[in-house]
Amino acid sequence: MNFKILDCTLRDGGYYTNWDFDKNLVRTYFEAFNNLPVDYLEIGYRSSPMNSYLGEYFYCPQYVLEESSSLSNKKLVIILNEKDVRAEHVPDLLGPCVGYIHLVRIAIDPQNFKRALSLATAVKKLGFEVGFNVMYMSNWESEKEFLGQIKEVDGIADYFYMVDSFGGVYPEDVRKTYDIVRNQTNTAIGFHGHNNLQLALINTLTAIDCGASIVDATVTGMGRGAGNLQTELLLTALNAKNGLDLDFNSLSKVVDPFAEMQKDYEWGTNLPYMVSGANSLPQKDVMSWVTKRFYSLNSIIRALSNQSKGLKDNIDLKNLDEDKKYKSALIIGGGPTGKMHSKAIKEFIKKHEELCVIHVSSKNAQEYKDIKNLQIHCLAGNEGHRLEEIYEDIIIKDKLVILPPYPRTMGTYIPKGLEPVAFQLTDITFTDKYHESVTSLAIETALHLGVENFYFAGYDGYKEDIKPQELELFNENEYVIESLKRNHNLSINSITPSLYESLDSRSVFSLI
Amino acid sequence: MNFKILDCTLRDGGYYTNWDFDKNLVRTYFEAFNNLPVDYLEIGYRSSPMNSYLGEYFYCPQYVLEESSSLSNKKLVIILNEKDVRAEHVPDLLGPCVGYIHLVRIAIDPQNFKRALSLATAVKKLGFEVGFNVMYMSNWESEKEFLGQIKEVDGIADYFYMVDSFGGVYPEDVRKTYDIVRNQTNTAIGFHGHNNLQLALINTLTAIDCGASIVDATVTGMGRGAGNLQTELLLTALNAKNGLDLDFNSLSKVVDPFAEMQKDYEWGTNLPYMVSGANSLPQKDVMSWVTKRFYSLNSIIRALSNQSKGLKDNIDLKNLDEDKKYKSALIIGGGPTGKMHSKAIKEFIKKHEELCVIHVSSKNAQEYKDIKNLQIHCLAGNEGHRLEEIYEDIIIKDKLVILPPYPRTMGTYIPKGLEPVAFQLTDITFTDKYHESVTSLAIETALHLGVENFYFAGYDGYKEDIKPQELELFNENEYVIESLKRNHNLSINSITPSLYESLDSRSVFSLI
Repeated sequence: MNFKILDCTLRDGGYYTNWDFDKNLVRTYFEAFNNLPVDYLEIGYRSSPMNSYLGEYFYCPQYVLEESSSLSNKKLVIILNEKDVRAEHVPDLLGPCVGYIHLVRIAIDPQNFKRALSLATAVKKLGFEVGFNVMYMSNWESEKEFLGQIKEVDGIADYFYMVDSFGGVYPEDVRKTYDIVRNQTNTAIGFHGHNNLQLALINTLTAIDCGASIVDATVTGMGRGAGNLQTELLLTALNAKNGLDLDFNSLSKVVDPFAEMQKDYEWGTNLPYMVSGANSLPQKDVMSWVTKRFYSLNSIIRALSNQSKGLKDNIDLKNLDEDKKYKSALIIGGGPTGKMHSKAIKEFIKKHEELCVIHVSSKNAQEYKDIKNLQIHCLAGNEGHRLEEIYEDIIIKDKLVILPPYPRTMGTYIPKGLEPVAFQLTDITFTDKYHESVTSLAIETALHLGVENFYFAGYDGYKEDIKPQELELFNENEYVIESLKRNHNLSINSITPSLYESLDSRSVFSLI
Repeated sequence: MNFKILDCTLRDGGYYTNWDFDKNLVRTYFEAFNNLPVDYLEIGYRSSPMNSYLGEYFYCPQYVLEESSSLSNKKLVIILNEKDVRAEHVPDLLGPCVGYIHLVRIAIDPQNFKRALSLATAVKKLGFEVGFNVMYMSNWESEKEFLGQIKEVDGIADYFYMVDSFGGVYPEDVRKTYDIVRNQTNTAIGFHGHNNLQLALINTLTAIDCGASIVDATVTGMGRGAGNLQTELLLTALNAKNGLDLDFNSLSKVVDPFAEMQKDYEWGTNLPYMVSGANSLPQKDVMSWVTKRFYSLNSIIRALSNQSKGLKDNIDLKNLDEDKKYKSALIIGGGPTGKMHSKAIKEFIKKHEELCVIHVSSKNAQEYKDIKNLQIHCLAGNEGHRLEEIYEDIIIKDKLVILPPYPRTMGTYIPKGLEPVAFQLTDITFTDKYHESVTSLAIETALHLGVENFYFAGYDGYKEDIKPQELELFNENEYVIESLKRNHNLSINSITPSLYESLDSRSVFSLI
C-alpha cells in the first residue's frame, strides 16, 4: 500500500475520558497494534499547564513517552494545539520527546495558518516529522487568504492534513479539496474524517483514491462527539478490497474493551450530531449540549435547525423587575423525591405563604399545578416545549417564566400563553462558572427577589452506577450551590433526601 | 424530489423483537411519520402459519391493517417472502389487505426470479402496486440467468429493488449494477441498503443520483444484524443538501424511543458484521452467532476470515469411541456458582470416582485443573482458543476434547497439545433442535458414555434484567435439557442453585 495509517484512539478518545485511561487497556492497545498493519500511533497532546484537571495523555509526561515507546513497535506521535503553543515553548515542551516521538502534529485553525508556520519550523528543528492538521475543511472555500498560503508548508511539513472537523463533507468535496491543495503544494496530503454522517469510511477511501499519503482512524471510532472513522472498519475494508494482511485476533482483542467502554460513554453519531455535521456546525457545542441533561435532544435539534436556517429565534425579552420581594424560595428539581413526597411538599408550601416556588425541571412541575404561591419556571434552552406538553391549560396567574440572559445559545422559546409573564435575567453574577446551568438560573432569580431562605426539593443526586454525564451535572450543581453558600450568608436546606454535600439536610415532614 | 422514501422500521426491526412492538411505540411511530416527508411505511409481513412463535407484525392480521390505516396518512406496505408463498395463496393472504395496503413487496432470491413473476402477477391482479425486492445484489454478476430475465418485470412490477443483502457494496458497485438493470428494464428502480460498512447513506445517495425512484430506510437503522440506513440520517442529509422540508420535532420524537431500545438490542454494525459485509457473507448466520453467547467475537471473526480466504479450517476428526463407560456425569456450566462453590463441587467429584466431568464453558474450567477424574471439554466453535488462554500447561492425561459433528460451522480449532485426545461426535440425536448448542454437545457425549445420572453445576440461569440474547440461550438450554428428560428415564439434578425448571434441585453440600 502506498499510504500510511495513523491510529489516534488515545488522543481523540481522551475527549471522553479526560485523557485518563486504564493501565491494562493501554497495554492491550499497544500490544494488539504491534500485530496490526498501522504505521503511526498518536498517544496524546503535549501541553503547558492548563487551568483545570486534564489527564495523563493530555500532557504525556516523560515516563508515559518511555512506557509507550517500550510497549510499541510503531512510530509514535503527539499533537500540539497551535492556539496554545508558540515557537518559544517548543524546546521545553518537545525536548523530552526526542528519541521517543517520531511525528509531531499541529492542530491549526486556518485563520492562524501563518503563525503556525513558525511554530512548525521550531518543531522541525528538533528533528521531528511535522504534520499540519488544518481544521474546518468544509469552510475552506471562504478562507481565501489561507488557500493562498498553503504552498508555504513545502519544506516545513511532512504531512498536510485536511481535517473534516464537522463531519460534514461528502466524497465529492474530498476530491475537490484534494485537488485544490494538490495544486498548491508538493507536501504529502493526509485526511482526518469524522463520522457524523457515517461518511468517514467512504471519504477516507476517496482521499486514498485521490492519492492521500496518510489517513487517520480510531478504535470503535472513539473521539469527540460523533467520533472518527473506526480503525477496525478501515482495516477490514482494506483487507477485503486490497488484500491487506490482517490479524483479526489482535484486532478483535483491541476492539473488545473499547466497545465495552462505548456502552458507557456512548460516542458515535446520533440525530443532533447528524444535524451539526450536515450543516457544518461545531460539534464541540453539540457534544456539551447532549452530555448535559438539561437540554433535551428536541431542543438541541430545534435550535441547531433554526441556526442552520438562519432563523432568528432569539428574542430580547423584558428584564425581570418583579416588585414583590420574597424572603424564602423552594427550588424544585427533577429528582424522584420531588414527586414521591409532593403531598408533604405541598403542605409545606401552603404553610409558607410568603414563599415562592421555582421549578428547574418540567419533570415534577405537574404535581404542583394547583398551589396558590408564585410559581417560577426556569427555562434553559428550549425547555419551554417540554413544559407546554405537560400543562394542558396554562393559567398565567401567579406564574413567571425566567430565561437566561440574552442572547441565548439555544434560542428563545416561550410556552404558548406564557408570553406576558416571560422575563430574562440581565446577568448571572453569584457564580463564576456554569452560567448555562438551570440551577444557576434559579438561584440568580431567587437572589433577585431578595430570597434569604433557600429550600431545595427533588435535588436527589444520583445513586450508584452514575453515568459520566450525570456526574458532570451533579458536580456543576454542587459547584453553583457552593458558590451561593460562599458568597452569601443564607440558610440553604434540602427538605427531601439529597446526596449534595452543599445542601444542609432538613426533613419536609418536620416542617409541616 | 423525484424519488420516494419508504420507511420499513416495523418490518425490518421485527428481526430483533420477533415482530412484537409496544402499542405506544407503534402509535408514536405512525403519528410522528404523519409529519415527516416519507411516502411509504412498510408495516410487516403477511404469512401463512409458521412452526414457531412470530409476532403481530409478521402476520399483520386484519385489525392491525385497520389500526395502522386509521393512524397513518401514508401509503402502507406489506412484504411477502417469495420462498414461502405461491400464487394460489394470494387471494387468501392478500384479500384482507385490499383497501388498507397500497404496495405489496416480494423478497426474492434471484435464483427464484422466474417463479416470482407468476406470484407477482397474482398480486397485481388484486390491484396492489408491486415491488420486486431482489436480494444478494453483490453476487448478481454470477447470476447470468437472472440478469437475462430482468426485463420480464415490465408491466408486472411497479418497483424493481436492488437489495444489498450483505451490506457489502460500494458506491461504484451501485452505479454499475444500476446501469445493468436500467439497460434491461423500464420499471422504476429502488435501492435497499444495509449498513455493515457504514456505506448505506452514500450508497443510497448514489442510487438517487443514478435515478432511483424509491429508497428504503429504518428509524435508528433498526433491522437485521448491522441494520439499515437510518431514516433520520437520510432525512437530515436531504434537508441540508436538497432543502427537503423537515420537522425535527417529529423526527426526534420517533427516534428517541427506538434509540432507547437500541441500547438493549444493540443493532448496528460491529466487527463481525463488518467482516461479513466486506466479504459478502450472510449476516443472518453472523447475527445468530453473535447473539448466542457461546461463540466469542474472536471465534466468529477467525471463522469468517478463514471462510473469506477460502482457508480450510475444517478437519474431519476421529469419532469418539471411548471404551470406558461412566454411570454419572457432572456437567459444569459458566455460571458464577460453578466458581463460588468449586470447593464443595470438587469434594463431590472426589467422592464419586466413577464420575466424569464435562465442561461446557472455559469460564470455570480453571477451578477444576487438579481433579483426578476424566475431564471432557466440549468445544463448540473455536472455543478452543479461549481454553488455551486459561491453561498454561495442558496435561492430556485423563482429558478428552469433544467437538460437534463434521463439518462445523465455525471450523475446527483444537488447543495446542490436546490434538491426541480430540474427538468429534458422529451425530446429535437426543434432541430435534439446537444441535449447535454446547449443552447439546455435552449431553450427547454423556449419553454416548452410558451416563444415567446427570448432575449439573454452574447452570445458574439469569436473574432480573435478562438480555434478549441471554433469554434465547436460556430457552435453548431449557429445551435441550427437557428433550433429555422426555426421551430417557434418567436422574437429572442441579447441585448448585439454578433457575432452570427442567433441572431437579439437590444441594452439593448434602452430597459430600
